[in-house]
Amino acid sequence: FDTSPQAVRLYLLYNHWFMQMLVYVFIIINLALALFEDPAVVPLPIWATSTIEIICLSAFTVRMVHYAKVIPRDKFWKDPKNICIIVIVTLSFIDLTIYGALKATGYFAIRWSRVLRPLLLVNVTEGRQLRRAFRSIRNALPQISYVFFLFMFSVLVFSLMALKLFGKRGLLTIDGSPYFTNYLDIVFDLYVLVTTANSPDVMMPAYNYSVFFTVFFILYIVINTYTFMSFFLAVVYNNYKKYLKEEVRQLVKARRFKMCRAFSLLQETRGEGGEPVVTQAKWNHLVKLVKPNISIAHRELLWSVLDDQNKGHIGKIAFVQLADLLSIQVITVKSQPHPIQICFPSVYNSSVSRFIRYMVRTRVFVYVYDLIILVNAVFIGLDEENPVVSNAEWGFLALYMLEIILKLYATEPRAFFARHHFWNWFDTIIIVSALFGTIINSALKHCYTSRQILDIVFILRVVRLIRLVDSIKRFRAIINTLIKIGPTILTFGQLIVVVYYIFAMVGMELFKGKVQFFEPNSTSPDQEYCGNPLLKGTTFAKLNYCKNNFNNVVSSFIVLLELTVVNQCGFTAVTHVSARIFFVLFHIVVVIIIINIFVAFILEAFLVEYTFDKSDLQTSLEKKIE
Amino acid sequence: FDTSPQAVRLYLLYNHWFMQMLVYVFIIINLALALFEDPAVVPLPIWATSTIEIICLSAFTVRMVHYAKVIPRDKFWKDPKNICIIVIVTLSFIDLTIYGALKATGYFAIRWSRVLRPLLLVNVTEGRQLRRAFRSIRNALPQISYVFFLFMFSVLVFSLMALKLFGKRGLLTIDGSPYFTNYLDIVFDLYVLVTTANSPDVMMPAYNYSVFFTVFFILYIVINTYTFMSFFLAVVYNNYKKYLKEEVRQLVKARRFKMCRAFSLLQETRGEGGEPVVTQAKWNHLVKLVKPNISIAHRELLWSVLDDQNKGHIGKIAFVQLADLLSIQVITVKSQPHPIQICFPSVYNSSVSRFIRYMVRTRVFVYVYDLIILVNAVFIGLDEENPVVSNAEWGFLALYMLEIILKLYATEPRAFFARHHFWNWFDTIIIVSALFGTIINSALKHCYTSRQILDIVFILRVVRLIRLVDSIKRFRAIINTLIKIGPTILTFGQLIVVVYYIFAMVGMELFKGKVQFFEPNSTSPDQEYCGNPLLKGTTFAKLNYCKNNFNNVVSSFIVLLELTVVNQCGFTAVTHVSARIFFVLFHIVVVIIIINIFVAFILEAFLVEYTFDKSDLQTSLEKKIE
Repeated sequence: FDTSPQAVRLYLLYNHWFMQMLVYVFIIINLALALFEDPAVVPLPIWATSTIEIICLSAFTVRMVHYAKVIPRDKFWKDPKNICIIVIVTLSFIDLTIYGALKATGYFAIRWSRVLRPLLLVNVTEGRQLRRAFRSIRNALPQISYVFFLFMFSVLVFSLMALKLFGKRGLLTIDGSPYFTNYLDIVFDLYVLVTTANSPDVMMPAYNYSVFFTVFFILYIVINTYTFMSFFLAVVYNNYKKYLKEEVRQLVKARRFKMCRAFSLLQETRGEGGEPVVTQAKWNHLVKLVKPNISIAHRELLWSVLDDQNKGHIGKIAFVQLADLLSIQVITVKSQPHPIQICFPSVYNSSVSRFIRYMVRTRVFVYVYDLIILVNAVFIGLDEENPVVSNAEWGFLALYMLEIILKLYATEPRAFFARHHFWNWFDTIIIVSALFGTIINSALKHCYTSRQILDIVFILRVVRLIRLVDSIKRFRAIINTLIKIGPTILTFGQLIVVVYYIFAMVGMELFKGKVQFFEPNSTSPDQEYCGNPLLKGTTFAKLNYCKNNFNNVVSSFIVLLELTVVNQCGFTAVTHVSARIFFVLFHIVVVIIIINIFVAFILEAFLVEYTFDKSDLQTSLEKKIE
Repeated sequence: FDTSPQAVRLYLLYNHWFMQMLVYVFIIINLALALFEDPAVVPLPIWATSTIEIICLSAFTVRMVHYAKVIPRDKFWKDPKNICIIVIVTLSFIDLTIYGALKATGYFAIRWSRVLRPLLLVNVTEGRQLRRAFRSIRNALPQISYVFFLFMFSVLVFSLMALKLFGKRGLLTIDGSPYFTNYLDIVFDLYVLVTTANSPDVMMPAYNYSVFFTVFFILYIVINTYTFMSFFLAVVYNNYKKYLKEEVRQLVKARRFKMCRAFSLLQETRGEGGEPVVTQAKWNHLVKLVKPNISIAHRELLWSVLDDQNKGHIGKIAFVQLADLLSIQVITVKSQPHPIQICFPSVYNSSVSRFIRYMVRTRVFVYVYDLIILVNAVFIGLDEENPVVSNAEWGFLALYMLEIILKLYATEPRAFFARHHFWNWFDTIIIVSALFGTIINSALKHCYTSRQILDIVFILRVVRLIRLVDSIKRFRAIINTLIKIGPTILTFGQLIVVVYYIFAMVGMELFKGKVQFFEPNSTSPDQEYCGNPLLKGTTFAKLNYCKNNFNNVVSSFIVLLELTVVNQCGFTAVTHVSARIFFVLFHIVVVIIIINIFVAFILEAFLVEYTFDKSDLQTSLEKKIE
């Protein structure tokens, strides 16, 4: 590393939160371009989208050049994520040029580089968590593939058996086509049975013929749907656990190594042959630099934990613990006097005021408000056009406001709105928004009824009910687990977005315009079969699934979500049979791998939460505080 | 315990394998009665089924009395399983009497005690594993219920929101009924959405109205379908692991206690103040009694492991290990000469014969036969009415027979058919049966074609392909895990049978005769709507689900299996709406609890298999053998 002031300034600029945010803004703009490019939700001319894309790509290039200046050259070229970004940006430029040229001359062109866009999210320096998730998948792949090949072997053998058992019997499916006569069709049908999407349907013709054939399907479901799918979960879970441990170990190792280097820079030797130590003054300076917004009392507390014999200096072992210590959250409860107490001490300390403050803190107060919420729930369920019900809403709002005001009266406002008081924030935001919403709604009522505002008011009213959960201790524990794993779920959300985006881009190129959605009041005769004669008489058209199409990026994402839940593939009817590969691939990637990782993640979070022990440092910190 | 010879004889008789088998035979007969009782698969008159049931119940009573004689009185009455059996048998007798009386006088009667029958399976002395499974469920119930209540709270809140958002918009479902206007209907629909059975359908009207409403469903699916269902799995898995550890610890404790008692009976004191020991003679006698079919060499080996200093006697600690030692499987490989070698030594030892034996043992031989199996798979897929294909079958059979004969020539027959050589047994049985089947089939071909025999021959041919798995090492590991967990899966199967039987009995009383199945060639106009006017125009009738009914115990079981895979509830249309309770209850019990236990079980088996270490005893045994 170059340690000249200029290089350090460049480095600090690179890691400035504003620069990092800017990168994400450009990535989001780049991804959002899919909304405006053909097939678009809101069509924009090619020159507009191209210009925006060029700006985005230039921004990434600048960022990359900046990074190359910050980091030693050999390290820069060794890092695969930099190579990835350079390749993606170059390919995007090439694709953009070709596409522009072909479109200008009137030829058919595909924007294939759009598939690469979400990969930027993975490869930017800030995408550590996401890269970790992808690495975890890559490490699990060999094991998953063994189970997958065995699973496919089982499906193929069962399909062969189905062909032999049912093929010659002349059975018909519900839409009159021959049942189980083509080997590849059988393989596909049985694969879909694993996803349970066609569960009783695929069995019915055989079942109607003879009860004994159900044995075949029962065996198939037990072996493939249940046992193999559990195997996939087991493999993913096992790898997830193993890999998580490995990652944590490496992180701790890297951190310790860096702390040792920091120590060797700051150390000074005490006396003759004494061990190298770091003095309190240097340490204080360091902590001030690293965490500027830490209070002096907090810093003193941390020092006293490390230097428990009050020697005024610490050794290497104690110094290395600094990073762990700084990561422990210390909630400073300041018992400041209430503002009203300062202004009107006589009023605030009167017996009536004391009684109110006492009442607000009792369990009875909580129970009364739980009861009010329950009654409110019933009122929400009633018809809001009844004047009694709509007026009662004002009463409930008043009661909730009263609760907040009473609590604010009993507790010091800054303590009430402390960062870790999730439910106080939740309450206040919901109630105040609901109040504004209701006022705006009733103000507008005399002119016209705005459904949008009313919808928001309804949602706020119902969300209020969630507060009930907080009163029950067992529920609170589960909710706290959910809140704690929230940030990691965000990483998971990014993972899903990356995979969905890639599949959406490919799906849009394959299926755009194949299925048309007609507004409910349209009178077009094509409405019956979603504008595609191939869909005439299919269940897809009959169930009015026309809006499940790949005509723009939003509906593609919704279709992919539906496919994640239940893999029904009406699209194979409108294109070639080989389109099934797209759906099977999606099932393998999303359901078998990603959803299982999600389940493994929740499983591990839950199990860890149940067997959580405080670390040594945390206990010694707590001891000091006492 | 009474230790008189008579009591011991009674005890041995009680635990005789024949008596235990007899109990299971009676339980199976008792359970199978559902096939013949109204609503029956094969109707039998009431007097016949009643007589059989009385015989079964008497058998259980005799067994109970026998057990009461064997076990001390206070222990007998303290054991809940005995009380259960007595109550079940008594209630069954009472029900039988009431039913007989009511039927004789022509009144309506319900055989409600049939629900209790499967509980006998749980409560007989031999049903230890099953009781353990039920205990494990009972222990997990409190935790599951917390998550379940929170989950139901979430469903109720979402339903309320759905009512407010969609109720007033005048949307219509695909069959023209109003969409999301009744709160209880919404709750049910959203509950079913958790099972993914009505996945895109329930969303489509809202989606067609506006894209933004999908946010509601996406949130719902992420929170309830994915997160809460993972929570259920986590809770079940956590409890399963905890409980499994506890059970194993108690088992080990009980065994050690019993071994200590046995030691104190057999011990003798060596010298003055010496420790009590057991001599080799006594030990030999004991092992001979406990395991009569163990070889002398094996017994000597075990002794030498325990008495590693060759003192001729062992102390308490070594003695207690006996049970563990006996459970270690020792495969005795006897290198006996081949029978042909004994009869015709010159032929067997000739260079040609030696070359054949060498060839059979090479990897090439295995690969050649793997190739043959692959080619065979292609031939199976081809049309068997083509004479080339049907004649090729004879060729393949000959090749397979040749393989077995060659292997038998190279290996000593008794070693070839050793108990642990699973695949040799598998091969031989499959090939010989296929040979017989094919011969019978071609013999009968000249008179008439029997589909049943042909089906069996086809199945045998396809099953043969499974052998391919054994050639690939990675696959073999997975298959071995499957084979190892086989016995425990049997316990799981019993659990499923118990739960399915209870639900089938209740379902039959609720829904019998509501849905009729008509043979495909029937001309009845009722066929269109499964014989029930209420089903006119429903998807249930359109998809020809008529055979999915509760009209007899076999079809009930099949419907319940379908409900396990995908919970679609057409039955609510033919009875009261409250019948939904039956389906929701089934989903909670089977999918949320039992299937999750199955997944937890596979998960644990897989993880244990991957982190399996040999015990100390096993390693010391292996050291001795070397």
